[in-house]
Amino acid sequence: MAVFERLTHLFSATESSLSATLFNSPPFQSFTVFILEVSQQPFSPTPHSTHSIYPPIVKTVNLDLPMNDPEEELFRSDGGAVLAGFVLFFPNYSTFLAKPGFYIEDLFVRECYRRKGFGKMLLSAVAVQAVKMGYGRVEWVVLDWNVNAIKFYEEMGAQVLQEWRICRLTGDALQAYGN
Amino acid sequence: MAVFERLTHLFSATESSLSATLFNSPPFQSFTVFILEVSQQPFSPTPHSTHSIYPPIVKTVNLDLPMNDPEEELFRSDGGAVLAGFVLFFPNYSTFLAKPGFYIEDLFVRECYRRKGFGKMLLSAVAVQAVKMGYGRVEWVVLDWNVNAIKFYEEMGAQVLQEWRICRLTGDALQAYGN
Repeated sequence: MAVFERLTHLFSATESSLSATLFNSPPFQSFTVFILEVSQQPFSPTPHSTHSIYPPIVKTVNLDLPMNDPEEELFRSDGGAVLAGFVLFFPNYSTFLAKPGFYIEDLFVRECYRRKGFGKMLLSAVAVQAVKMGYGRVEWVVLDWNVNAIKFYEEMGAQVLQEWRICRLTGDALQAYGN
Repeated sequence: MAVFERLTHLFSATESSLSATLFNSPPFQSFTVFILEVSQQPFSPTPHSTHSIYPPIVKTVNLDLPMNDPEEELFRSDGGAVLAGFVLFFPNYSTFLAKPGFYIEDLFVRECYRRKGFGKMLLSAVAVQAVKMGYGRVEWVVLDWNVNAIKFYEEMGAQVLQEWRICRLTGDALQAYGN
């Protein structure tokens, strides 16, 4: 994703730094990830216990051409399926609505799986969950030059807010507050 | 705040809807508020138990003119001090940094208490807490026409990100995902 966004100079995550800071609380209460896995075989039913909080959504997608994933083995998960994308989100809060919502930090589909409706599936899954929980909004950000993404988001029902700008305090400017 | 932002048509919060959705988990793990209270008398020490998670920050501010708060009684808290402002924030997460941060949803100082450094105190308190917890960023949004706020935030060390736009799925467009 950092490569795609041309932001590799800002990327400092490692497997250990991610695992130390994510998934320390139940889904939806804090940082949460929906994983998109694909398989040419039907998915075997998962044990009931893992269903209790969020039963997996299983969909059949018919493709015109066979899928060619050059990194299939690298992204194969324990169950034999292949990781194709993810969406990472967490609760936010609107005092105007007096309701929580979800903020989507990352929505990503690996290159060979794009333009097949998988991004829409991931984003929809977050929206469905928000409605299920009675939440008021789903929000995320987009780069203003990314016209394809903007078109896609508008088709999904989102408004693009033109007047708001993000303010960010980070790095040395943030650390200065620790002194 | 809705009046100040000329957004009263979007405001639907009530005391009961706020109390039903806020403060259901310990501070900093989810939606959190720092309250700014002012008093002409020294603050009496609060019991130790309430100190354990976040000891109150007490500051003395010398004013050139006596404070005139026409709504003093309406905003008087149980301890006798007067509520002058608040900042509401919650954790966010950056996969680029592999670190949580804080997102500030609201920073508000009541009109008669403005231009006295109180906004800076509230925003600094969030930044200090972020550094204390090893967090990587503090973020919030500003309207692009609010030049005074932008100047203030830049003086506080924040960058204003010009390229990002907020996407919002809400109202009927969100509810449609529940069907």
